[in-house]
Amino acid sequence: MRAEIVSVGDELLKGQRVNTNAAFISNALSGAGVPVGRVIACADLEDEMVSVLDESLQRADIVLVTGGLGPTRDDRTKQAVQKLLGRGMVLHHEAYQNLAERVKKHGLEMSSLLREQAMVIEGSEVIANTRGSAAGMIIDCGARFHHHFLVLMPGVPSEMRAMMELTVIPYVAAHSGSCIRHTPIKTVGIGESKLAELLVDVEDALPSGTTLAYLPHAAGVNLMISTFGLERDIVDRDNRTVVEAIVERAEQFVYATREVTLEETIGVILAGRGMTIATAESCTGGLVASRLTDVPGSSAYFLQGFVVYSNEAKRHSLGVSQELIATCGAVSQEVAKAMATGVLEKSGADVAISTTGIAGPSGGSSDKPVGMLCLAIAEKSTSQVLSKTFVMSGDREQNKLRFSEAVLRELWQWLRGSAA
Amino acid sequence: MRAEIVSVGDELLKGQRVNTNAAFISNALSGAGVPVGRVIACADLEDEMVSVLDESLQRADIVLVTGGLGPTRDDRTKQAVQKLLGRGMVLHHEAYQNLAERVKKHGLEMSSLLREQAMVIEGSEVIANTRGSAAGMIIDCGARFHHHFLVLMPGVPSEMRAMMELTVIPYVAAHSGSCIRHTPIKTVGIGESKLAELLVDVEDALPSGTTLAYLPHAAGVNLMISTFGLERDIVDRDNRTVVEAIVERAEQFVYATREVTLEETIGVILAGRGMTIATAESCTGGLVASRLTDVPGSSAYFLQGFVVYSNEAKRHSLGVSQELIATCGAVSQEVAKAMATGVLEKSGADVAISTTGIAGPSGGSSDKPVGMLCLAIAEKSTSQVLSKTFVMSGDREQNKLRFSEAVLRELWQWLRGSAA
Repeated sequence: MRAEIVSVGDELLKGQRVNTNAAFISNALSGAGVPVGRVIACADLEDEMVSVLDESLQRADIVLVTGGLGPTRDDRTKQAVQKLLGRGMVLHHEAYQNLAERVKKHGLEMSSLLREQAMVIEGSEVIANTRGSAAGMIIDCGARFHHHFLVLMPGVPSEMRAMMELTVIPYVAAHSGSCIRHTPIKTVGIGESKLAELLVDVEDALPSGTTLAYLPHAAGVNLMISTFGLERDIVDRDNRTVVEAIVERAEQFVYATREVTLEETIGVILAGRGMTIATAESCTGGLVASRLTDVPGSSAYFLQGFVVYSNEAKRHSLGVSQELIATCGAVSQEVAKAMATGVLEKSGADVAISTTGIAGPSGGSSDKPVGMLCLAIAEKSTSQVLSKTFVMSGDREQNKLRFSEAVLRELWQWLRGSAA
Repeated sequence: MRAEIVSVGDELLKGQRVNTNAAFISNALSGAGVPVGRVIACADLEDEMVSVLDESLQRADIVLVTGGLGPTRDDRTKQAVQKLLGRGMVLHHEAYQNLAERVKKHGLEMSSLLREQAMVIEGSEVIANTRGSAAGMIIDCGARFHHHFLVLMPGVPSEMRAMMELTVIPYVAAHSGSCIRHTPIKTVGIGESKLAELLVDVEDALPSGTTLAYLPHAAGVNLMISTFGLERDIVDRDNRTVVEAIVERAEQFVYATREVTLEETIGVILAGRGMTIATAESCTGGLVASRLTDVPGSSAYFLQGFVVYSNEAKRHSLGVSQELIATCGAVSQEVAKAMATGVLEKSGADVAISTTGIAGPSGGSSDKPVGMLCLAIAEKSTSQVLSKTFVMSGDREQNKLRFSEAVLRELWQWLRGSAA
């Protein structure tokens, strides 16, 4: 079984709304073992819809349409389907009852405009709308379309989602007869092309039905391993084999094989060991603290953070000596170390991390260019201090993000190493 | 001129990524007076892409493609275009230089895999990539496709956006033959429906060719006034008239009529008056400091920030008394005030802001629910302290964002008021 999604609405073509409906439906179908071939957003013009639906129904076994079922003049989906299939419309009794109750509840009068929402395509199976008034439909499109199915749903996300969950997904799962497994592999500290080089033999030996996708983002790249097939056991086994092979080759860069963030992964380690953390930031300006505290429950291990932009602040808040700053410069591993040990002492935390660098766009020199980061990690129990220097390339916001990713990555590796 | 957008990538069809790229491009094209006919997301399979591009190029004057230009094996866009147009590839000198510099900067070796990213379709105009390594292209597809254009861009949002802004939008605008004026109106502290009520008469009297779009985001709503027409003078005049009418009605909520952020607006005021600032954050966890330091040049006015999660940290770093915390609770206007005056003193800054609250998901009570924020602003010269309480509804990350927006909004209004 193969699906396509058609999203109707001018607002999608003008970029006034992001097509989150299509992502939700794709995800749900994919989870039910039904691959999506194309997603098409088109205008709410009758002829355009007829042409898009005609093509999609030739290619796909099932076409899911959102939008254009409401009561206003720009809602033309049912008209387009009537025209395409050459069918009439009938009033659906239950849908009308649902509508009448809603109309009454909102203190309105039933009008012919509103009544339109309970009119459905002849020969369709009606999808109850538990969140709104427009009825949904599942339609067998007949011999001309090889009995492919059309599913019509409203564009309002909450109404569409309820219909998908209650009616459409169970319907599709019962008809598809296939299954699928997706496993994300979250990495840090390696670029797309380096990772691809590491994995070249895994990619060469992918079992049939399994794909490996690279999902780069601003500060790194994640992978998605998807396996599709008819038998649950084989799908799960093939997927697991590939995931294990990748983790083995890229172990030092993989922080999770499920949907978690790096800061959540760090939080789990800290909470598990009963450790507390504090931060001292210059170039990241509070972003590291903000990321660590994005994690629910982070107040259990995050004690305190200092954002020390000025040299004054580095001295007064963290006890970094004027001499050290004068000798080595504010952006140096020495100052990063002094910041980390300073915050460790001030806060009483078990581990401390620090950043000092040049986010740009100005402030760089040939010695210390824009994009340079010095970071340090200090641990109370061992009195160990690590410091490193990196140079990134990006604008100010990208640099801040990459700086924060680098220090969290080093912290994660440090914590992982100290467990062994 | 009519456009279509083709978004390449299995992650879009599996619902692992929401197609924000298509929304950005649609919006930009629409802004340049070029309507988008369809948006199609398709798999990164060569034959599928050939078929999708073939159809789109027959319908549309310009087809913009994102994705599939990277160095890995699932990047097949250039192969598909070669096949469709029957053209070869050539190494582009400047793109190769850009790539070589990036590779060197990251301490990598040039490989044949990386070099692929500087290979472009024969006869194409290269779009420089200022944010990454894969070259973009504008291609005249020749007589078979009525000389329609194909634009190839990477799928990484920051790279695509930079290409759109620097090269593609000016190119499209120069070829479309009409003129347009967009003016953003950036607001803070008012919701979409309230704003719509304020502006009902302006909306009723919009000149023909002018549209008013509401662009809600996580922490508020911005407006975009777009005027489209054939004559520059009339377009500019109509646009200005509407913008002035809106600013007059919503003055207290409008912080800019150009593309700047609230933190940039605050930065301009602080820098202009030679004032310095410091922050003391509990529930926002460093996000306020991070936003203030996102602004290039912010080191001129941002002195220092404290992230004080624990009561200990509030006492030791900011001198908030144990008694006050015990009497009023850590989440109270009294503690917010003590944090603001504490950081004012510690840092020597001219103005200080503080936040204390409950970001959630746990930690709330009936008295002090999740979403509650207490904030304070303290100024050195006048010894004045303002404090306020708000209750927001959202998940942890939304709450942090809305909290940070609230304190920046209050600071902006405070600074604006103190100038008068």
